[in-house]
Amino acid sequence: MQTQPSRLLEQAVNELAKLPGIGRKTALRMALHLLKQTLSDVESLGTALISMRNEVIYCRECRNISDQEVCAICANPRRDHGLVCVVEDIRDVMAIENTSQFNGVYHVLGGIISPVEGIGPRDLHIDHLVGRVAEGSIREVILALPTTIEGDTTSFYLFRKLQGFELQLTTLARGVSIGDELEHTDEVTLGRSIVQRMPYKG
Amino acid sequence: MQTQPSRLLEQAVNELAKLPGIGRKTALRMALHLLKQTLSDVESLGTALISMRNEVIYCRECRNISDQEVCAICANPRRDHGLVCVVEDIRDVMAIENTSQFNGVYHVLGGIISPVEGIGPRDLHIDHLVGRVAEGSIREVILALPTTIEGDTTSFYLFRKLQGFELQLTTLARGVSIGDELEHTDEVTLGRSIVQRMPYKG
Repeated sequence: MQTQPSRLLEQAVNELAKLPGIGRKTALRMALHLLKQTLSDVESLGTALISMRNEVIYCRECRNISDQEVCAICANPRRDHGLVCVVEDIRDVMAIENTSQFNGVYHVLGGIISPVEGIGPRDLHIDHLVGRVAEGSIREVILALPTTIEGDTTSFYLFRKLQGFELQLTTLARGVSIGDELEHTDEVTLGRSIVQRMPYKG
Repeated sequence: MQTQPSRLLEQAVNELAKLPGIGRKTALRMALHLLKQTLSDVESLGTALISMRNEVIYCRECRNISDQEVCAICANPRRDHGLVCVVEDIRDVMAIENTSQFNGVYHVLGGIISPVEGIGPRDLHIDHLVGRVAEGSIREVILALPTTIEGDTTSFYLFRKLQGFELQLTTLARGVSIGDELEHTDEVTLGRSIVQRMPYKG
């Protein structure tokens, strides 16, 4: 793009290209698309982004995104508040909620420990989790973090922080995906699923 | 996404998902990314989009996007104002400018005739082109529209509109791309490049 005909367009493209996974070509296509929309459509988009960033609240209990001080999950008396699932971010909450298999509550760390990206334990909601546990009503914490070096580091850090408390610390079962064929399963997963094999229930 | 934890997030995702090529999953990823940015970063994005839509000007001559009343290309006295290249939108202007092979000026239609999408000749800058031609100083119009049914329809419509004027009407050469192998060229292009074969310059 040598000859950008308009500084305003250039600026919009630059801003759009900062979004994750958006290159300059896609950003330009988006900008030209927006130019064809009505001004009020574009204002809806712009103000929706700004007011989301400006007004969104993080739940006092679990640090999930919320419009109220306490999110709908934490405010629900029918959920098991003694069972806390620790996740990296709110997409994980959504993914687990979509399974309809979990009736506890969450704790959103807001990331995982990553020295490469300069994210340390203090940048995450870890002290807040320890505080929740220290209150004494939590009997099980599920560590549902990714199985990467960063995820494992974070899990181990949490294990060290929480080992003084009387509670059960669990993690997600890992193994061959349901419906997957063995030959297409990566060897680490397959290896772990053999080592951690389970009694067959006929 | 059954349980959207926040109306503000939901709204931002809905708006982002209206962008071309952006599904709800990508929109959510973008929204969560924006939540981690500073408020002023998000405001830069939002206001850049709104002010682009609000303040951008279309060149009085060629309808290209511009910050001034007349765009940099039309205002350039060293360009050949008797040679006008008609294109669908400003991305085509950028693509042709990037070749550095064209020294004329442009006319941006702002789309092509598409009954399916409800775009008729009146929605495009066609009368404006006819007006420019009627002024009498244009000696050649290049129809550089896509070779689709819509593009061909638009080219033919322009041909009918402009055939009363004394000017040369040309179109882009079509053929096998430079560097492409024949076996990988689609049959329509290959067929046309045989029918429209050119004298070999040894």
